[in-house]
Amino acid sequence: MAGYVPGEQPRSFDGITKLNTNESPYAPSPRVFDAVKAALTSDTLRRYPDPSGLGFRKAAGNVLGVDPDSILIGNGSDDLLTIITRAFVPEGGLIVSPTPSYILYRNLAEIQGARFESVPFNADWQLPDPWPIDRADLTFLPNPNSPSGTVVPHAAIRKLAERGPLVLDEAYVDFADADGLKLVGKSLMVTRSLSKSYALAGIRFGFAVADPAVIRELLKVKDSYNCDALSLAAATAAIEDQEYLKQTVESIRATRTRLTESLTGLGFAVTPSHANFVWFRHANREHKPIYDELKNRGVLIRYMNYPGYGDGLRVSVGTDAEIDLFLKQLMDILS
Amino acid sequence: MAGYVPGEQPRSFDGITKLNTNESPYAPSPRVFDAVKAALTSDTLRRYPDPSGLGFRKAAGNVLGVDPDSILIGNGSDDLLTIITRAFVPEGGLIVSPTPSYILYRNLAEIQGARFESVPFNADWQLPDPWPIDRADLTFLPNPNSPSGTVVPHAAIRKLAERGPLVLDEAYVDFADADGLKLVGKSLMVTRSLSKSYALAGIRFGFAVADPAVIRELLKVKDSYNCDALSLAAATAAIEDQEYLKQTVESIRATRTRLTESLTGLGFAVTPSHANFVWFRHANREHKPIYDELKNRGVLIRYMNYPGYGDGLRVSVGTDAEIDLFLKQLMDILS
Repeated sequence: MAGYVPGEQPRSFDGITKLNTNESPYAPSPRVFDAVKAALTSDTLRRYPDPSGLGFRKAAGNVLGVDPDSILIGNGSDDLLTIITRAFVPEGGLIVSPTPSYILYRNLAEIQGARFESVPFNADWQLPDPWPIDRADLTFLPNPNSPSGTVVPHAAIRKLAERGPLVLDEAYVDFADADGLKLVGKSLMVTRSLSKSYALAGIRFGFAVADPAVIRELLKVKDSYNCDALSLAAATAAIEDQEYLKQTVESIRATRTRLTESLTGLGFAVTPSHANFVWFRHANREHKPIYDELKNRGVLIRYMNYPGYGDGLRVSVGTDAEIDLFLKQLMDILS
Repeated sequence: MAGYVPGEQPRSFDGITKLNTNESPYAPSPRVFDAVKAALTSDTLRRYPDPSGLGFRKAAGNVLGVDPDSILIGNGSDDLLTIITRAFVPEGGLIVSPTPSYILYRNLAEIQGARFESVPFNADWQLPDPWPIDRADLTFLPNPNSPSGTVVPHAAIRKLAERGPLVLDEAYVDFADADGLKLVGKSLMVTRSLSKSYALAGIRFGFAVADPAVIRELLKVKDSYNCDALSLAAATAAIEDQEYLKQTVESIRATRTRLTESLTGLGFAVTPSHANFVWFRHANREHKPIYDELKNRGVLIRYMNYPGYGDGLRVSVGTDAEIDLFLKQLMDILS
């Protein structure tokens, strides 16, 4: 077993334009700073945090229009994916996801001692119909997907959930036009992250939305105190500030449009993205040397190579200045 | 499967003397507050944290005299116990621990789909010799043990590690006279918590010390970003302030001595404790009504009942004022 390798985290950020792990280029809501400062008391630090995160669940339930009892808090959405895997998949069980997609799913299967099968997306990044797997213990569907930034429609998701337990991984959904919360049911769970749209990758916070009966089963698997008091304070303040979220998401979507157009103008085939990154491929240039040369010049993006599919480049949507710098270097490399 | 139930965390602490979950009654080191404030920047919050926690591992390695590559960071020591369980124990495997002891171990086995066997301590809280289990996939030995606060000597631990992989759970070791770091080897791992002696239950931080080859295997199982940036900052500052740790531990040990003497004076059989709690039993009073009546009066302690052993009471060592209040109420209840 090789272990999951996340995007590089350089030890020093001096002179580095970091567009490889889909972090937000903008600050978190100012309310987050106030909330963490307010929580930074001796009693909050020395005592165990609320294991269920009731304050966060109430705030999130209010914002999203869901019952707080249908929300499970997690130490990043990876924690939730692990909890769900352990609750649903026996050793030797089957985990399925489409490909190319988030490579962590395969790793979760390996750790659990489960089998893993990937189902290729159609050429237009839609799900094959009929879906070729009759029954899996768990299926992961990121929507929007990474690296493509594409979405599949609700009808296809509903159909997939009929085949067995389905995790709709909505880590990037705040950058898309619609979410799948309404699809939550006996066999469909949604996971969310505060790492991307809320600019809180550093505090590790995510949550799942599921049927309350499913949540009760997941609670038996999660560590009692999986979310710390400062992260809970930060996450609660962040999700309460929907106005700020809207502003940063709008900025990122505007930059995404400009980035997509510029990459297209440079001769790349660019997949229209519903996330905070863009997947782009060139018909007659090799991708790896472009990635390497950008890295030499201090611009970190992601080079991805998927068995049976091929390779390409993924760039996170940074600030306008960061994207200008990236485009300038890219143009220079291509010329 | 029932799920692990931790000690009660009341929603409001007004008028409650909380002596049930072994939190420190003292503030964390002042350096912790400075470190969290310094880390509270937009860039730290929006970026993923260092997945390996190198800054913490260097600081801890320096303080403990161990190689930073033999340290694994965890989201509380429960996270480390889960990681170790998943790395060592297959579904249907065998987990063993002595009893009465930390009841989470059984739950970890249940979640993993493993068998669990408990081996009764001798009447003097020492390990039976010979140990009756020939081979387990993993054995947990808390040292000091909870609820007893007792320790077993190095010779017995070494012997137990010859039977297979052993986790020496040292969550409470800073309150004892000696630790087992020197025993770390191919089949012995140590886990530590910052929740008790460092007064940081709220930030969820622990670490494991193991052979670097074992650490590399555990790294494949842990979530990439299991510790957040603010917790890493807090934990690093806390472990660097050994002078402060020494002071608070000395206070707690002094109060523990006085508490032990007072409980003995009230007619209880008190087990001499090497931890920040005391286990006490009465020959002819029922324990549950004492616990209930203390709770009615706003003093939360822990009532424990172990199959095949019996019940008793565990009280955390609070401040002198808290222990005075507890003793006063207890005396009143007994009279």
